[in-house]
This record gives sequence, structure tokens and C-alpha cells, in this order.
Amino acid sequence: MTTYVHGYSEIEARRLRDQAGALAELLHDGTNYPAGSRVLEVGCGTGGQTVQLLARSPAAHLVSVDVSATSLDHARERVAGEVPGADVRWLQADLFNLPFGDAAFDHLFICFVLEHLADPAAALRSLRRLLRPGGTITVIEGDHGSAFFHPASPAAQATINCLIDLQAAAGGDGLIGRRVQPLLTTAGYDDVFVRPRTVYVDQTRPELVEGFTRNTFTAMVSGVRDDAIAAGMIDETAWNQGIVDLRRSADPGGTFHYTFFKGTASRC
Amino acid sequence: MTTYVHGYSEIEARRLRDQAGALAELLHDGTNYPAGSRVLEVGCGTGGQTVQLLARSPAAHLVSVDVSATSLDHARERVAGEVPGADVRWLQADLFNLPFGDAAFDHLFICFVLEHLADPAAALRSLRRLLRPGGTITVIEGDHGSAFFHPASPAAQATINCLIDLQAAAGGDGLIGRRVQPLLTTAGYDDVFVRPRTVYVDQTRPELVEGFTRNTFTAMVSGVRDDAIAAGMIDETAWNQGIVDLRRSADPGGTFHYTFFKGTASRC
Repeated sequence: MTTYVHGYSEIEARRLRDQAGALAELLHDGTNYPAGSRVLEVGCGTGGQTVQLLARSPAAHLVSVDVSATSLDHARERVAGEVPGADVRWLQADLFNLPFGDAAFDHLFICFVLEHLADPAAALRSLRRLLRPGGTITVIEGDHGSAFFHPASPAAQATINCLIDLQAAAGGDGLIGRRVQPLLTTAGYDDVFVRPRTVYVDQTRPELVEGFTRNTFTAMVSGVRDDAIAAGMIDETAWNQGIVDLRRSADPGGTFHYTFFKGTASRC
Repeated sequence: MTTYVHGYSEIEARRLRDQAGALAELLHDGTNYPAGSRVLEVGCGTGGQTVQLLARSPAAHLVSVDVSATSLDHARERVAGEVPGADVRWLQADLFNLPFGDAAFDHLFICFVLEHLADPAAALRSLRRLLRPGGTITVIEGDHGSAFFHPASPAAQATINCLIDLQAAAGGDGLIGRRVQPLLTTAGYDDVFVRPRTVYVDQTRPELVEGFTRNTFTAMVSGVRDDAIAAGMIDETAWNQGIVDLRRSADPGGTFHYTFFKGTASRC
């Protein structure tokens, strides 16, 4: 594995910010909450989306919850560094048992959370009471089955399938993006509107070759190597070949495609 | 197989036109050629894209070529019916041996053709001399590996794989969409710009459920049933299950995703 260290210089740091910015723009475009509106971020993790919410809705009252105290510590630190003076209330809580009254929020935001839950429809149903009538929910999820690339490679696909299978074994769903519309509808929301947000990468977009194909998607797949081999899903040789092939899609002449899904809905 | 007959009434005919219109808009948006410009449509087939070109560039001088005299007859008839008085010159010719001088055209348009060729890069290279310096080429292709849907189904995926494998056996490439950027670059074009054109379908878009999931994609896969079974790629039981599952993605709660790729480039 590479020992390359990110952020070793100011130029490098800016490049990394630009990369993150391109993806953030893709996902957050259209999500702007009015001044004074009460916004709940459900499952803020280490604050990756929190800083984006704050950048686009600087005068909203944001409450960010996560079940993990460690993640919340990271999120708090990140926001303090990147958005000094931001108005965020942090809270450790389980999303199925949130200490808020009915209709306590104007808007809910939940990104990259449902994929980890055994019953995402139940989660969406339980959150609905927190919305005032006329309030909105925004859901963003990826779909690892949406990844395709050139050169096509069954070996690379096998490594992606390991990621999907491990997530399923953990009770989640790496293919949840395609389910966002039926999930919101089943959970009782109205005005459900879901659209794909597509990342397409070729050599004419070097910032995405680096920022998405290499440092986001391939890095994510590479991260499950040990678990996949330990689970007997794949052997080391096959794994290594798959990662080599996946990286090839980031070489000149390669292309990469991945789809996120963004859904909005309201409580009538 | 269904014996449903399309177009049995005026309302039905209009519904079918609306369906075709949504997909045509997705693919042709941005393709408008100026009055008087010389445009070559390479591989017009039965004229499905020709009518769209004429609608968006009514004052261009269009030459539409195809290798098949039968297809050209259909195309001529279709255009006469849908765009009466249109200025099209029809020509039967092989795209590798076109009877035009260098720089004879301002613009080239080639849609759903490269997928059938054994050497699409050679085709693009041979077409380049027909462009005047500064002229443009537009390429549109689908990618059958981009199809994913809910409920996910290995059986449905197996039927799609038959379509891809049959196309490969015939010397084509059903996964060509992801290759459009490298193909145009390799063929020597400049200013290559490729973007996905995504069809996303859920129950909130009934015209696409009907027009794309059922009547375009599932119909296309269904069309290779006999060939796939005859080739021993799949047995009848597995095939039937796959089609049942594919159709399920068009039911309420189902979703469907497919990506076309549109590329433009120029000759400097």
C-alpha cells in the first residue's frame, strides 16, 4: 500500500480542497436552508457534510447528531477548523430515539447513513414526526452497483462485489441509492423527488481522476481488502489484480462512472 | 410475447410520441446546426435520429448515409411522414468508403453506430478527413453495462449479459458508451468533451416507466431471447425469470437507471 501523505504542502492542500469541492458541489447543489430555519443533520459522522451544510446555509440553526461520540469529537474539531464560529449544536444520540418533540425541525438532512442500517425505511418513518408540516427531508446515498469503468474488468468488479457483500453481511446495503425513491415513499413522505447525481471521470477531468477515481472510490474499495480476504470472499492474488485493474481506469484512456442519488420529500 | 399493437388510437399515438420525445430531448439537447451548414449523419438506420436532427436543425443541409438500402427506404418513408418537405440527401454507402471529398462537411453526427463496429476507432479516424478544420463531430452511444435497477436481480442481470455477449460475439461492443472519450481522442480529434446522459426512472415518471424501462430497454433485451438460448448462453427457465425480474423494476416501487454517453469533438 502507498505511504503517500496527503497535504504535505499548501499547493497540495489546495488541490485536495478543490477535489473535495467538486464532489461536494455535485451532492449539495440545491440544498440551501433559509436563515433561522431549524435543520437536523442525522448521522453527521466526522463532519464531512456538516461543513458543506454550514457553507451553503450559514444562517440556519443546525443540530448535528451522531451515535458515535468519537465521530462527534472529530466533527466538532473539523468544523471548528474549517468554519470558525459556526452555529452548530452537537448531540450524541441514536437516530431511532432522538430527544426532540414532534415538528421540532423545518428540515432534515441525512447523507451516507441509510446504507448502514438494517431497516432504512423504519429509520425514515421514525424521523418523519420531527418535521413540521411542510418541512423537507433530503437524503443522499451512493450505489456501489452503479460503478462501471473502462477498461472493463471482471477482476476489478470482483473487488467491488466484496465491498457490497461485506456491507450486506454487516446488515447494510451498498446498493441503496437505487432505493431512495421507494424508501421515502414507503416511509410516508410526500412530494418525493429523486434524481441521480453522476460522477463521470475521464482524462479531461484530472481533478476527478485523482479526487474521485483514485482517492475516493478506489481508496474505499482498497479499504476492505483485509476483511474481504479474511471472510474468504476473494484470495490475495485475485484481489491484487482487481485493484490493479481498477487503478487502470484512472490512467489516460480510462474512464469511470459512479452514481449518487439525491432525494427530497416533504411532510404534508 | 405480447401482441399489443402500438398506435391504435390518436391518444395512444400521442403518448408514444411523448415517450420518444423525452428520450430524444435527453440525447439531442445541445445539437443544433446553423442554417446552411453541411451535416453528415453517418449510419442513419431507419431514421429515428434523422427526424430529431431535422427538428432541431431545420435549415441545415443534411446528408444521411447508411450501408443498408432497406433501412434507407424506411428512413426516407419515416422522414417523409414526420417531417414533410425536409431537405435530406439519402445515400447508400459504407462509412469506411464514403464518396465525399476532404473537408466536405461542417459537422458529423453518428449515433448508435460505433457499438456495432469491430474497429470503432478506425471508423472515427476515417471520418475525420470529411470535416473541415474547425468542424465538429457528435457521437452518441449507450452502455448496457450501465443498467441497474431495483429490485436488484442476478437473473435479470444474466439476461442483460446475454445481450452484451451476443453483441460482442457479433464483433460489436455493448459497453461502448464508457469508451467514447478515449475513442475520439485516439482517433485524432481535438476538444473532446464527453458527458453521460442518464435515464433515471421511478414511479414518479410514468412516461419513462412505460417508454424506457418497458418499451425500450426491456423490449431490447427481450429481443435477443431466441439467439441467447440458441447460443447456449442461458436456458429458457433462467431467461424467463430474468425478464420477469427486469419487468419488476417497472412496477411501483421499482427504479431503473441507464446511461448514454454523448461526445463532441472538433478537427483543428
